[in-house]
Amino acid sequence: MTALHLKTAEFEKATHSDFFNIAVSVDCVIFGYEDKKLKVLLIKSDLEEFDGLWSLLGDLVRPNEDLEEAPYRVLLDRTGLKDVFLQQVQTFGSINRHPSGRVVTTAYYSLINIINHQPKSLENEVHWHSVKGLENLAFDHKLILDTCLKRLQEQIMEHPIVFNLLGEKFSLRQLQDLYEAILGIDLDRRNFRKRITLKGWLVDLNEMEEDVPHRPGKLYKLRNQLRKEFCLGEKKHLEAVVSN
Amino acid sequence: MTALHLKTAEFEKATHSDFFNIAVSVDCVIFGYEDKKLKVLLIKSDLEEFDGLWSLLGDLVRPNEDLEEAPYRVLLDRTGLKDVFLQQVQTFGSINRHPSGRVVTTAYYSLINIINHQPKSLENEVHWHSVKGLENLAFDHKLILDTCLKRLQEQIMEHPIVFNLLGEKFSLRQLQDLYEAILGIDLDRRNFRKRITLKGWLVDLNEMEEDVPHRPGKLYKLRNQLRKEFCLGEKKHLEAVVSN
Repeated sequence: MTALHLKTAEFEKATHSDFFNIAVSVDCVIFGYEDKKLKVLLIKSDLEEFDGLWSLLGDLVRPNEDLEEAPYRVLLDRTGLKDVFLQQVQTFGSINRHPSGRVVTTAYYSLINIINHQPKSLENEVHWHSVKGLENLAFDHKLILDTCLKRLQEQIMEHPIVFNLLGEKFSLRQLQDLYEAILGIDLDRRNFRKRITLKGWLVDLNEMEEDVPHRPGKLYKLRNQLRKEFCLGEKKHLEAVVSN
Repeated sequence: MTALHLKTAEFEKATHSDFFNIAVSVDCVIFGYEDKKLKVLLIKSDLEEFDGLWSLLGDLVRPNEDLEEAPYRVLLDRTGLKDVFLQQVQTFGSINRHPSGRVVTTAYYSLINIINHQPKSLENEVHWHSVKGLENLAFDHKLILDTCLKRLQEQIMEHPIVFNLLGEKFSLRQLQDLYEAILGIDLDRRNFRKRITLKGWLVDLNEMEEDVPHRPGKLYKLRNQLRKEFCLGEKKHLEAVVSN
């Protein structure tokens, strides 16, 4: 068995010069929750081709920048937001997705508490938008948004990743409101309570809601260990544990 | 609110020429199962820099090719395999991961039945390797392999995606062997049976194994609907259903 057809990296580059003319970008889908609505952070596109359209927060990856650093830099530059965990979701690379040339983009998502993370620079045309009803976005950003939303919807059924959007104590009604906002559907009250209870995520606090305009509900919290892992970031929040 | 700072796509490209010199590649992590072992399809690297090392099946994305087409083309070219569903897992983009220049790579995985999908061109140094104990691979392919394995391990606990690796009828012992090979750990027999049963994936056939060198076990099959969705490809096999 001989080492046939070996070539040097330099030779490979020289013979593939037309392959090395792609730019890579990142796009951040930052989901928030407010007034029982799922929202997403968008910015006005700065390209004439998309004049007046909203786009995701994104930028080209710099020549001296690792791919994984770029979304954190973009988020900090555009919003002042730090300490936000971003999850890589999918890479989009249709030939003609960007008018400037071939740009392959990697999409990341995060889920943040709007109250704790109000962007500092809203004057630069960064705004929260309700996800529901959003249609025309720049580039293929609607497809990217939909893909990230689908991933979020899948993950909230498997892992307790959305509890940082609620207070430490919450009622099942508040939790159901949140799930309905993310899933975009109404859930059967009894069935939802049963499924959530079976997951073993919650602790009954033996307390009732106060000062609410409806019949007070019982209050719950997320188990301490899960709260540490999935809300306080001791473990990156979507690293699923396989063997337990 | 005026449309400040609008620029054309052409201007963006002209002012970012040093951003447009990346190549994008795809790498395919093709898992198989044989002799109670999880295997992966590897090829000898054709770069001098990695002389003698094995690498994943991959190639640069062509200038006229969508990202999502590339892994299917690579798999067909290198192995003759068709009709294999490839799932995008993650994109890797450290600055210096490739000696030819900046190459960002998108990894895909698939899980195939080795018996049904024996590559036709094994003479071109494509071989099945046991995943266990694999250490030195070319590029960052060990990291990519580990990442795809972790994704597979997470997904087999949530979705019935591995049943195409077994015959239509199988015993719980055979199923446990398969799960242990993928997870790389021994599972408690009683606990495994309980967890799998609770998922509601299986139908008890009221038949027993025959001609086995141990006490015959009961035979099961995957529910017809799940078999259609996850094995026969009526639904792409990892599209999780959220709302049921």
